[in-house]
Amino acid sequence: MDSVARLLITCPDRPGIVAAVTGFLYSHGVNITALDQHSTDPSDGTFFMRLEFQTPHMDVTRPALEAAFRTVVADRFHMDWRLTYSSDTKKVAVFVSREEHCLMELLWRWARGEIDCTITNVISNHPDLKEAVERFGAAYHYIPVSKDNKAEAEAAMLDVLGQDTDVVVLARYMQILSGDFVSCFDHRMINIHHSFLPAFAGADPYRQAMDKGVKLIGATAHYVTEELDGGPIIEQGTARVSHRHNVDDLKGLGRDLERQVLARAVKWHLEDRIIVFRNKTVVF
Amino acid sequence: MDSVARLLITCPDRPGIVAAVTGFLYSHGVNITALDQHSTDPSDGTFFMRLEFQTPHMDVTRPALEAAFRTVVADRFHMDWRLTYSSDTKKVAVFVSREEHCLMELLWRWARGEIDCTITNVISNHPDLKEAVERFGAAYHYIPVSKDNKAEAEAAMLDVLGQDTDVVVLARYMQILSGDFVSCFDHRMINIHHSFLPAFAGADPYRQAMDKGVKLIGATAHYVTEELDGGPIIEQGTARVSHRHNVDDLKGLGRDLERQVLARAVKWHLEDRIIVFRNKTVVF
Amino acid sequence: MDSVARLLITCPDRPGIVAAVTGFLYSHGVNITALDQHSTDPSDGTFFMRLEFQTPHMDVTRPALEAAFRTVVADRFHMDWRLTYSSDTKKVAVFVSREEHCLMELLWRWARGEIDCTITNVISNHPDLKEAVERFGAAYHYIPVSKDNKAEAEAAMLDVLGQDTDVVVLARYMQILSGDFVSCFDHRMINIHHSFLPAFAGADPYRQAMDKGVKLIGATAHYVTEELDGGPIIEQGTARVSHRHNVDDLKGLGRDLERQVLARAVKWHLEDRIIVFRNKTVVF
Amino acid sequence: MDSVARLLITCPDRPGIVAAVTGFLYSHGVNITALDQHSTDPSDGTFFMRLEFQTPHMDVTRPALEAAFRTVVADRFHMDWRLTYSSDTKKVAVFVSREEHCLMELLWRWARGEIDCTITNVISNHPDLKEAVERFGAAYHYIPVSKDNKAEAEAAMLDVLGQDTDVVVLARYMQILSGDFVSCFDHRMINIHHSFLPAFAGADPYRQAMDKGVKLIGATAHYVTEELDGGPIIEQGTARVSHRHNVDDLKGLGRDLERQVLARAVKWHLEDRIIVFRNKTVVF
Repeated sequence: MDSVARLLITCPDRPGIVAAVTGFLYSHGVNITALDQHSTDPSDGTFFMRLEFQTPHMDVTRPALEAAFRTVVADRFHMDWRLTYSSDTKKVAVFVSREEHCLMELLWRWARGEIDCTITNVISNHPDLKEAVERFGAAYHYIPVSKDNKAEAEAAMLDVLGQDTDVVVLARYMQILSGDFVSCFDHRMINIHHSFLPAFAGADPYRQAMDKGVKLIGATAHYVTEELDGGPIIEQGTARVSHRHNVDDLKGLGRDLERQVLARAVKWHLEDRIIVFRNKTVVF
Repeated sequence: MDSVARLLITCPDRPGIVAAVTGFLYSHGVNITALDQHSTDPSDGTFFMRLEFQTPHMDVTRPALEAAFRTVVADRFHMDWRLTYSSDTKKVAVFVSREEHCLMELLWRWARGEIDCTITNVISNHPDLKEAVERFGAAYHYIPVSKDNKAEAEAAMLDVLGQDTDVVVLARYMQILSGDFVSCFDHRMINIHHSFLPAFAGADPYRQAMDKGVKLIGATAHYVTEELDGGPIIEQGTARVSHRHNVDDLKGLGRDLERQVLARAVKWHLEDRIIVFRNKTVVF
Repeated sequence: MDSVARLLITCPDRPGIVAAVTGFLYSHGVNITALDQHSTDPSDGTFFMRLEFQTPHMDVTRPALEAAFRTVVADRFHMDWRLTYSSDTKKVAVFVSREEHCLMELLWRWARGEIDCTITNVISNHPDLKEAVERFGAAYHYIPVSKDNKAEAEAAMLDVLGQDTDVVVLARYMQILSGDFVSCFDHRMINIHHSFLPAFAGADPYRQAMDKGVKLIGATAHYVTEELDGGPIIEQGTARVSHRHNVDDLKGLGRDLERQVLARAVKWHLEDRIIVFRNKTVVF
Repeated sequence: MDSVARLLITCPDRPGIVAAVTGFLYSHGVNITALDQHSTDPSDGTFFMRLEFQTPHMDVTRPALEAAFRTVVADRFHMDWRLTYSSDTKKVAVFVSREEHCLMELLWRWARGEIDCTITNVISNHPDLKEAVERFGAAYHYIPVSKDNKAEAEAAMLDVLGQDTDVVVLARYMQILSGDFVSCFDHRMINIHHSFLPAFAGADPYRQAMDKGVKLIGATAHYVTEELDGGPIIEQGTARVSHRHNVDDLKGLGRDLERQVLARAVKWHLEDRIIVFRNKTVVF
């Protein structure tokens, strides 16, 4: 399992891409175990591809493979690409406020080996969850945020995240992060919004849903961009509700949705299944 | 089956309502076969109730029952109420433009006896579906609509609908009806909107959904009010989509959703299951 | 909240039941906040009813209310009935083997106040989960079971459960309990089976599902009876699978289903929403 | 659109297959527009692949392409393969008894261009649906079946189907066809069974579901084999039911499920998305 590599490609579509990529890999002794591709349009569209391959019989080193791929294939097709290895376990930081259900779901799945990562740090603007988090072996950082200290607080957060945080997950973190902060984790920061976006963006979506009288509530996991609740959507889910449910009932049903939707989105990100293109996602 | 009556009640909540209503009906030899109730709040909330009962052994005439109910129960509890009989088969008019799938679904279910109504008239701003509709035994009225003739067109429509249309269904009718016209069918005109409202109100919702990159599409059946796509929601449904679907695929998947969601909403309306309260619905 | 009472009734259907019950309660100053009823057939069928009411203004003691109800209403209609009070918090014992996901889900929801009970005891045939359980404040009892000691083991379990266990939940407990043991908890012992029953009863249902090539997997929560995996079904759920999933993937997707389905079933049982009748359930 | 070709491959998995196939197609001027692959196990497993490609710039004739593919690629990898062209519109025969909803759904989708086929013949053991079918332009054959005439009836059916029926769909056809008849349409005869198989195989599945008290009903589309209701499953769906539904309600809800599930299965078959392997299906 430690020898699985994943290659993600985005490039202008034209004939011959799949043949070139798979021919190159085969010629280097690589065994492709999964391959997905998509084109927005075979003529003049954009082409996306994800390959998983095993590297035990690879005839070159990783840097050599990457250099050769760049020269022989990637440059020729003007590819945007990245090659990752499952042995480079991703380091995840989770942000949380008071509602702990999404955080707990992630810690729990991590503890059970259901998501392939290390949850290194949990950052919160409340001290409440310290003990629950440390029990799982993650560090807990209580960083209060107010109108006045936002810049210092974000500096303290960046200090914690350091250079080696691969993914940031906002697991019901109720503070708005600055554009500068967000831009440090471009397509690497995932938020769970407690509505079926684009409906009910902003504050208190379950109250908004109640007032509107919808018959389904939703949850949306998306990458964070500077536009609040407007980044590329990764995954969504819905659940039936009726006139019998009050706002607290919606929140209860919503918690279950949020846990599931966020867990799927994080899992897919960790498995390098997601390509972002023009504020939308391709999820292989 | 022709002897089923349905009583719908809305009133301020307070103790004793159920006992008063059921006691009254029992004392008149009525056999209650279904009873649903809901309260927004037992203290100071609003109370809703739906009863179905059979009337073969009723000891009074319908008018007498209604008069007695008003005096003995309804006035005492300040009830908004209505009593309907399944033997008064509702007359339905369907409006349609070019997309026929929702219309056909309704005609078909009517022909099979799955919805309890008579589809008397179909009105369209296109002549195309005349033959398909007449085959089912409904009248087809081609009433073209343009910027210039809207008032005359609506007058012609009202002429067709006459005094005895109980329900109007907008089955993908792409013209906007005037507020005056809409107000003739308060809580009796049902529209199917091809999105998960309140997301993507207005024109071309599947294109909007595609551009936003949502992972679920939806359809919403609602009562029509003067606010475009803003009336009380009756029913909603969603279906999974992915990057693999283009706008035409979304429309295709959406057609199936629209048919199902509209058919459920119309069926519930025909069975007198819906109470509208403050721009929301209680669906028993 | 501590003053909510719930009345569950099963009796032969005939006119006047609702009027009699609600009239009786109203006459004693009770405020009904929820009422559900169902009849298998208005003539000669069986009638089911659930009422929730608040008792702050009740004019009699509980025993007096119950005695009066028996005399005035229940005997007259030949009712099977029970009256419970939400202030009598139910005591739950959970049985588990090695797979901890269902147990953890219940402990977690209990800790968050999402299910109204006290989880007093956890019994397992493995010692592994002791620490995880005790952290929540529940007692952990490691009772190994083998072919030879089954009778002693069950005696030890009954010893733990004592006289005051209201509900037993088999949360992926992989030992088969004897008919004698099961009969101590008639309609009070809930099992989660990892398939869409009646398909794939018995051992290793995910393997069976894989071999059959189904496109949906399921989970079923049911009351335990002497017939293995054959008791009254409380709740079921399904999830889509495809040729891409191996048995381990099915188990992973299934864990999420099992957690949700079992949690709903336990919540409904704790809220006295379930009536068992002829090996089926009415869930109000 | 008339120039889309589809290549389906099953073979023992080993490195180099994708490179060989895509390299071959590229060298002949073919533009691959969709590619899916799956392996049961990269070492010693079975490999499946589906390609869609456009042939306007193909440098050889179809027979020449096929001959070259056989020699250069297929034989080398011991492939089971087939190459189809969307311009060879498939001819479909539908079998039906009295329940017309599945038949009508297929006729309707065909008329709207939602499924790519020609429905040439409808065969029924009842005369009732003749007019409804002929209106769509398909031929209707009333072939009564009894215990005594089964062999003659099947001979008459084969006569109708002739040599040019590509697909047979059993759209709620309630007669059991002989093994000999079934074997004429190996992996080309699709049945809709009105339950979530393998639960409730055989007669009257909604009655069985009602008696068992399930909380979800289902429908299953599968290829027909000699084992009744036991062939490879193509697609399944479920819908929630409760104690409120009687057998007729289940049938009504089930009709909607059956229509949708069968329509998806037929569409996938017509688009050559399905590979059968060891009584299971791979659906790309």
